[in-house]
Amino acid sequence: MNARPHVVIFDVNETLIDMEPLRARFEDVGLSGEQLPTWFASVLRDGFALTVSGGFAEFARIGADVLKGMRLQDKAVDHVLSGLAGLRVHPDVPDGMRSLREAGIRLFTMTNGSAATTAGILRREGLLDLVEATLDVSGPRAWKPARAAYEYAVGLAGVVPAQAALVAVHPWDVHGAQRAGLSGAYLDRRGVPYPDTMSAPHLTAPDLRALAALWR
Amino acid sequence: MNARPHVVIFDVNETLIDMEPLRARFEDVGLSGEQLPTWFASVLRDGFALTVSGGFAEFARIGADVLKGMRLQDKAVDHVLSGLAGLRVHPDVPDGMRSLREAGIRLFTMTNGSAATTAGILRREGLLDLVEATLDVSGPRAWKPARAAYEYAVGLAGVVPAQAALVAVHPWDVHGAQRAGLSGAYLDRRGVPYPDTMSAPHLTAPDLRALAALWR
Repeated sequence: MNARPHVVIFDVNETLIDMEPLRARFEDVGLSGEQLPTWFASVLRDGFALTVSGGFAEFARIGADVLKGMRLQDKAVDHVLSGLAGLRVHPDVPDGMRSLREAGIRLFTMTNGSAATTAGILRREGLLDLVEATLDVSGPRAWKPARAAYEYAVGLAGVVPAQAALVAVHPWDVHGAQRAGLSGAYLDRRGVPYPDTMSAPHLTAPDLRALAALWR
Repeated sequence: MNARPHVVIFDVNETLIDMEPLRARFEDVGLSGEQLPTWFASVLRDGFALTVSGGFAEFARIGADVLKGMRLQDKAVDHVLSGLAGLRVHPDVPDGMRSLREAGIRLFTMTNGSAATTAGILRREGLLDLVEATLDVSGPRAWKPARAAYEYAVGLAGVVPAQAALVAVHPWDVHGAQRAGLSGAYLDRRGVPYPDTMSAPHLTAPDLRALAALWR
């Protein structure tokens, strides 16, 4: 499964983009910075809950609902969510993406967030030309790790799942991609153990630069 | 949809049982008490992710994985998780459950956690005789809010979904139950807004005592 894929599909939030600067936005509105991980896990929880029970909502709407559950008013909700568009990529990402392109691999992004936000950030970083398309789950109306989300992305890329690799820092995303027939690459920037309850990643690397080297 | 149900199925964690005392266990092992909600949201996120992508693991295993991701060693993981069995029910629960039984309603519990843990807590509180069975998602091997989890519970109760009500403090659980044809009752102990992205509850009450009064 270490064979070089034809297509690489990147998860976006935390995988390409560093979300830590959002902590300051939480503190701006009177929350604790420690509530950032609670918020993000809760947004994913609720997005997955809708997908598993037959429903769909976009990330920003669920993100707002969870912030309202943390007792924020509309203006404060907007302040936190508007921070998403200003985030930056992790330092290893530009080299890693360029290295994959130089190896002839086609690149896509597929996020549970917003494709437009992804495109805006990649454009500002000078990386948008490296990707063929920025995709999100509003197309399939199913959040990753549902099979339909991966099938949507590989379908738009015009390849079969076995020709594509999903790259993510989130084990559930690697697990779901592998279940859908893609290969899975786990980026382990923080050096934490991969969960026993999910299928082991086909590839693991400490960052995107190191992962790209495995596929050269 | 306010008609008295034949069967009430209770969610357990946070709905019947107060999880807040677990904060002290987090602090015992060097984490912040604010990491309790992050942990619980992350456990649900990962359980739902497995359910949505075709997998299954029990709550305690996912709970341990998430704690290891918070950099706890095995002994510290055990210390936190062993706290689950010692939790108590919310103060409104005994009166509420007895009132529902006096109204002739049959009671069940159905948890993404452990049926054995539920039974142990209810026994200690003198409430176990009020329920016909304590159920969990290891039966259907699908976490709520998957339809299969509710169908399993109503099937064991021997009723059709429309004769049953699911009671929970979690909007995703109310949403999923309603999608599966049960009626949904939302307990809003904290007074937070119900998310716009989920189907509105058929009934809302501030606690179980107040809910039981609606069905007398």
